[in-house]
Amino acid sequence: MTTPAPPSEPPAPRPVSRPGTRPLGVAAIGYAFMGKAHSNAWRNVASFFDVPAFEQKVLVGRDAGAVAEAAAKYGWAESATDWRTVISRDDIDIVDICAPGWMHAEIAIAALEAGKHVLVEKPLANTLAEAELMTAAAAKARAKGIQSMIGFNYRRVPALALAKELIAEGRIGTVRHVRAAYLQDWLADAQAPMTWRLRKETAGSGALGDIASHAIDQVLFLLGDQVTEVSGRLSTFVNQRPGTDGPEDVTVDDAAWATLSLTSGAIASVEVSRLATGRKNSLQIEIYGDKGSLLFDLENLNELGFLDATLPVREQGFRRILVNEPEHPYLEAWWPQGHIIGWEHTFTHQVRDFLTAIKDGTAPSPSFEEGLNVQYVLNAVEESAANKSTLTVVRH
Amino acid sequence: MTTPAPPSEPPAPRPVSRPGTRPLGVAAIGYAFMGKAHSNAWRNVASFFDVPAFEQKVLVGRDAGAVAEAAAKYGWAESATDWRTVISRDDIDIVDICAPGWMHAEIAIAALEAGKHVLVEKPLANTLAEAELMTAAAAKARAKGIQSMIGFNYRRVPALALAKELIAEGRIGTVRHVRAAYLQDWLADAQAPMTWRLRKETAGSGALGDIASHAIDQVLFLLGDQVTEVSGRLSTFVNQRPGTDGPEDVTVDDAAWATLSLTSGAIASVEVSRLATGRKNSLQIEIYGDKGSLLFDLENLNELGFLDATLPVREQGFRRILVNEPEHPYLEAWWPQGHIIGWEHTFTHQVRDFLTAIKDGTAPSPSFEEGLNVQYVLNAVEESAANKSTLTVVRH
Amino acid sequence: MTTPAPPSEPPAPRPVSRPGTRPLGVAAIGYAFMGKAHSNAWRNVASFFDVPAFEQKVLVGRDAGAVAEAAAKYGWAESATDWRTVISRDDIDIVDICAPGWMHAEIAIAALEAGKHVLVEKPLANTLAEAELMTAAAAKARAKGIQSMIGFNYRRVPALALAKELIAEGRIGTVRHVRAAYLQDWLADAQAPMTWRLRKETAGSGALGDIASHAIDQVLFLLGDQVTEVSGRLSTFVNQRPGTDGPEDVTVDDAAWATLSLTSGAIASVEVSRLATGRKNSLQIEIYGDKGSLLFDLENLNELGFLDATLPVREQGFRRILVNEPEHPYLEAWWPQGHIIGWEHTFTHQVRDFLTAIKDGTAPSPSFEEGLNVQYVLNAVEESAANKSTLTVVRH
Amino acid sequence: MTTPAPPSEPPAPRPVSRPGTRPLGVAAIGYAFMGKAHSNAWRNVASFFDVPAFEQKVLVGRDAGAVAEAAAKYGWAESATDWRTVISRDDIDIVDICAPGWMHAEIAIAALEAGKHVLVEKPLANTLAEAELMTAAAAKARAKGIQSMIGFNYRRVPALALAKELIAEGRIGTVRHVRAAYLQDWLADAQAPMTWRLRKETAGSGALGDIASHAIDQVLFLLGDQVTEVSGRLSTFVNQRPGTDGPEDVTVDDAAWATLSLTSGAIASVEVSRLATGRKNSLQIEIYGDKGSLLFDLENLNELGFLDATLPVREQGFRRILVNEPEHPYLEAWWPQGHIIGWEHTFTHQVRDFLTAIKDGTAPSPSFEEGLNVQYVLNAVEESAANKSTLTVVRH
Repeated sequence: MTTPAPPSEPPAPRPVSRPGTRPLGVAAIGYAFMGKAHSNAWRNVASFFDVPAFEQKVLVGRDAGAVAEAAAKYGWAESATDWRTVISRDDIDIVDICAPGWMHAEIAIAALEAGKHVLVEKPLANTLAEAELMTAAAAKARAKGIQSMIGFNYRRVPALALAKELIAEGRIGTVRHVRAAYLQDWLADAQAPMTWRLRKETAGSGALGDIASHAIDQVLFLLGDQVTEVSGRLSTFVNQRPGTDGPEDVTVDDAAWATLSLTSGAIASVEVSRLATGRKNSLQIEIYGDKGSLLFDLENLNELGFLDATLPVREQGFRRILVNEPEHPYLEAWWPQGHIIGWEHTFTHQVRDFLTAIKDGTAPSPSFEEGLNVQYVLNAVEESAANKSTLTVVRH
Repeated sequence: MTTPAPPSEPPAPRPVSRPGTRPLGVAAIGYAFMGKAHSNAWRNVASFFDVPAFEQKVLVGRDAGAVAEAAAKYGWAESATDWRTVISRDDIDIVDICAPGWMHAEIAIAALEAGKHVLVEKPLANTLAEAELMTAAAAKARAKGIQSMIGFNYRRVPALALAKELIAEGRIGTVRHVRAAYLQDWLADAQAPMTWRLRKETAGSGALGDIASHAIDQVLFLLGDQVTEVSGRLSTFVNQRPGTDGPEDVTVDDAAWATLSLTSGAIASVEVSRLATGRKNSLQIEIYGDKGSLLFDLENLNELGFLDATLPVREQGFRRILVNEPEHPYLEAWWPQGHIIGWEHTFTHQVRDFLTAIKDGTAPSPSFEEGLNVQYVLNAVEESAANKSTLTVVRH
Repeated sequence: MTTPAPPSEPPAPRPVSRPGTRPLGVAAIGYAFMGKAHSNAWRNVASFFDVPAFEQKVLVGRDAGAVAEAAAKYGWAESATDWRTVISRDDIDIVDICAPGWMHAEIAIAALEAGKHVLVEKPLANTLAEAELMTAAAAKARAKGIQSMIGFNYRRVPALALAKELIAEGRIGTVRHVRAAYLQDWLADAQAPMTWRLRKETAGSGALGDIASHAIDQVLFLLGDQVTEVSGRLSTFVNQRPGTDGPEDVTVDDAAWATLSLTSGAIASVEVSRLATGRKNSLQIEIYGDKGSLLFDLENLNELGFLDATLPVREQGFRRILVNEPEHPYLEAWWPQGHIIGWEHTFTHQVRDFLTAIKDGTAPSPSFEEGLNVQYVLNAVEESAANKSTLTVVRH
Repeated sequence: MTTPAPPSEPPAPRPVSRPGTRPLGVAAIGYAFMGKAHSNAWRNVASFFDVPAFEQKVLVGRDAGAVAEAAAKYGWAESATDWRTVISRDDIDIVDICAPGWMHAEIAIAALEAGKHVLVEKPLANTLAEAELMTAAAAKARAKGIQSMIGFNYRRVPALALAKELIAEGRIGTVRHVRAAYLQDWLADAQAPMTWRLRKETAGSGALGDIASHAIDQVLFLLGDQVTEVSGRLSTFVNQRPGTDGPEDVTVDDAAWATLSLTSGAIASVEVSRLATGRKNSLQIEIYGDKGSLLFDLENLNELGFLDATLPVREQGFRRILVNEPEHPYLEAWWPQGHIIGWEHTFTHQVRDFLTAIKDGTAPSPSFEEGLNVQYVLNAVEESAANKSTLTVVRH
């Protein structure tokens, strides 16, 4: 396992990667939780889906030894410690950013300017200002055929993709309201230790940015709608946690609540918590329309609840669709019916869609604009909570 | 609370009760578990359903004090200790037999011969011979306009009544197989004491007669089919239990298994147990047809699972129908949608149907013949288990 | 069926009813949905519970013919059309008010002043002013031994009574947050016709007063806590509905959302809707504490979900307790384990507790004060929604 | 992608593969459904688990073009069409047999004799005679340090591994009975075409060998018990299906039922079907002991139901354990809690355990003996069904 030598000078401007001429070279930055999940997607996507040829070139991390080990384990040809060097390499066409949120803007903008297609983990950035710069860079790059995408991977849960199809087909009619919740419990223990995720300066926010972002993205994705007005509330239930040198203040939210007014007239409630004891990774979505309803829970991600209110009342009921048939989104590639898939498969689908967009020269979704849009809403929730009043969502 | 004086001589032959001339007089025999449930039905049926006028005349039991107290509590005008006297009374038109199984034949036959309509709790009788005599008596009485019915009350669970309708309408197509189970756990504790229910001479059989009878009746009811061949198995897991004078032998089955071949070619499996820890009163039924399937569990008796396999595969799934709409059997009489009913309501429905049949002069179902038919099957299961071989069901 | 003659003059002040000397005389006012449910409770309570002797004396309604028919059907000895006359009768000790909300204050105050024990359906009244007057009257009467209670019947769901016990015992530790929702769908159809329930002047409010009141009462009941601050939102999705003479404006809310800050530091979210397609009567409650969690849904009211977070992680999980054992609140009176009860039984429990309190001379709960307290919260939700800001709950 | 040249002469006897000296060379035979699943396991196992070094050397199949394509897609260095050649290669240490059942014996015996560790898909073989020869070969090889294993992959479902642990720890006490079912519906449509799987000569049996084998293996695995006596039943609901030249006879079972007596005194019922409309891949297991019970369904494979009957009755209930914590079998290697895994992961666990056993020089489980044991039971079920009588299981 070698790390590439640093280039002697800044790379010259180079043309857009052209799939087809040689396999696309992929670099991933970050090898923690998200790096592991993204690597798994790159390692497996071609075994199941028909995607353009690519190579897992290099995995980038700060600790040379650890990243070298991770690269070997996760299927990368090389490892490296300096992302700047990597994004300047001619054999790298795609940069997959799994680093912490505060690093997103710098890397993504540099990569886009270097002509690399960029996939970035959510949230787009820790600050609105950074997110706006990234979005501008993405727009500029897109004009040159450079693609970018934000990793709201739950858009690639087959059950949620099916939900979107059903809504788009009018199967639940006019949506009146949505209940979205994302409940976890890893902070339920008041003695769980202080981490960077619980400090405002490193994490930006708590449950709000981390998991409400997913919930809000789903509302926008599923309904194809926009938020106009927001009423929000935040709470930190455990205000101090054990740090390395005694108790430290928790400066982000443990839980958040919001109601979102949508352009269509629908209203969505959002509730997220990291102290919902017994809920492990429960992104719950309920959508009520005048012709039907949909239910989803990420802890049972192979299932979609669907009630068709156009059937005779006598036989109406929420049906549990095991979203595991060849007829369902993404599923033909996997196993026969009833052989369920896992959480990580959403990343494989994400990479598949990203590669397909690159091949086709079309802009993949969710774009940075969509990521920024979620952040405008998160920002409004935070301000509404601080002001104790309902606010219009301001977009710059 | 008075008990009626014994009549000085045997009653003269009297004409069939004619609803409409005066309220029908009802006598119930037995005031334990089933007596309480039947009394509740009589006390409430007219508050919800349009039934012919009747009066809760007399409750019969062996212990004068206890039955008098029960009569007062459960809404009966009088109590009595001698059922023979009661069934000879002119003001009694209906006899509801909730006494133990070994008393059924004598009371039912006497009551039918006295020109009373008879409702008898299941099982019809403890022996085939008695059941056959009862059935003959019922046939004879029916010819004179005297009605009789056996209390397989689960036929009156709205969800199961709906299931029957859907099957009859062809909604699940040709039924291939049925899984019926009735699981309880009140004997799971090996130290649970000996009772008359665990002795062959008093109880006839164990789980087989007590709860497999319900499961088998449901198979026949739902499918409208007949059993031709049976393969059965019985087991007693706890062979001795604490009696009043030390350990006593359990001489009935704790659990039973059977496969039933049906005339239609379908096969039903039946599994019942009183040692299924955690299952309280779980009569589970699954019916698989070529166009759909149905699921039911008595512990959630307001729900029916229904899968419609004629829908596009993409949107198929078991739906949970909350069988609680005015459109559903029996439900219009109760509460608005979603306000669920309980177990006891099945008895109210049973009484409603029995009274309606009497008013209409039509033979109510399930008849004694149907009760006898279930006993032929139970008998074949027992013989098959003893012989370790598959047997044809013999009907006399 | 006779209706009593009107008394010639106002009744003289009379002493408090003394249970024990003669059966308590009960009058119920109203015979629609709630009147039917309350009547059912009175008719059956003594068959299951050991309560002081009472008699179903008279049912009161405006339409003489209809109320006479209802009285006969529901087990009342007489019917009447003038509630004033009835509450002046010496043989009436208890007045059960099931009339519409705008009539509550007048009847309840008059009945209390006449020395009758009063049970009143929720909501306490349509206006805060009326509710305050009623509460004052109840306090005054209580000093003389006259009892009063508001009919938040869901406090008598055994599963919720068990939930309260578990919380009080500390089994889920410190509660951090509560999710309460009450979802129905009887207005999901935009063509469902206009009714008095959809006009502010007759109904006071929409889903808020009708069903959010139950949800909020449960939060207060289960946690034994008080609301300090409220942020609310209301929405009317269908603004006009077909009236008898063409479209009419809907002037109440179809759905409501609120977050409630509680004295303990916990936060409760409340979401209610009458347009949640497929939800029939789904009062859902989730309570998250640092040692465990609880889940409930009124559509499965015999079940309580409980997660005990003090068990080893390896074996933690939400357990479905079938709240149907003799060990559970109210259940010993009913049927053996696993034989589930229905929605209406909550009213039977309510009457049982009310009668017991009268017998014991103790103040029953929920009191009018508790009912008023819920209305303060509802009021704050409404004002918060109108002002688009978070508000402190003001109690007069 | 090259296929290796055939060796000019039979390979000389060679020593057992010694892990550690060089990476183990793996060959897989078969690239259809099971080949795809096994390949996925080999491709990913080292990314998650600490296993001895190995290489995906060669994938073997009959169609040179197709197998070459599959090899490229699934991560194999080479492809080949002649399995004999491959198992003679010095650089191959492990042979993973995913070919159809009728080929298992020949390949497995040859590979074992060539000193290769062998993993073979279930069923062990299509005939008892073959299975016995394979078992003898495995025993002989094991004496020389050559390992072998049969691919009952569901033993590696974390929830089932946890179930086994709980049973072994006595958490459910003495097991009384087991309900095992494996329900699928891919033959529910009577017009589904004829295939080799529906002919006795190619498939051996139908649902019995294909899926009852899994159910029976689970019973033996979970309880650590042996079957003594069997009562079986088979049925073919659709006797003819469309073939390429008109209707053809289906000569295997569509569904099977059995009761199994176990050495411990427990009884297991087994029911399997390929016509259970709406059931996609539903291996359901219920185990009832005197101290608790367990529930499982493969369609929700991340969950285990557990009822602990040693808790106070008041708080007993089936709990849904989301078997997704680091404390659970295999899970530490994957994702954080609540991020569920899929069906294919069971194969990854299987390969992990197989490689670990090879490294440790211990015999992996389930062994060929265990596979043979399942086949003795299947054989007895078939004979019992044919004879219409209960049979003792004969082991040669």
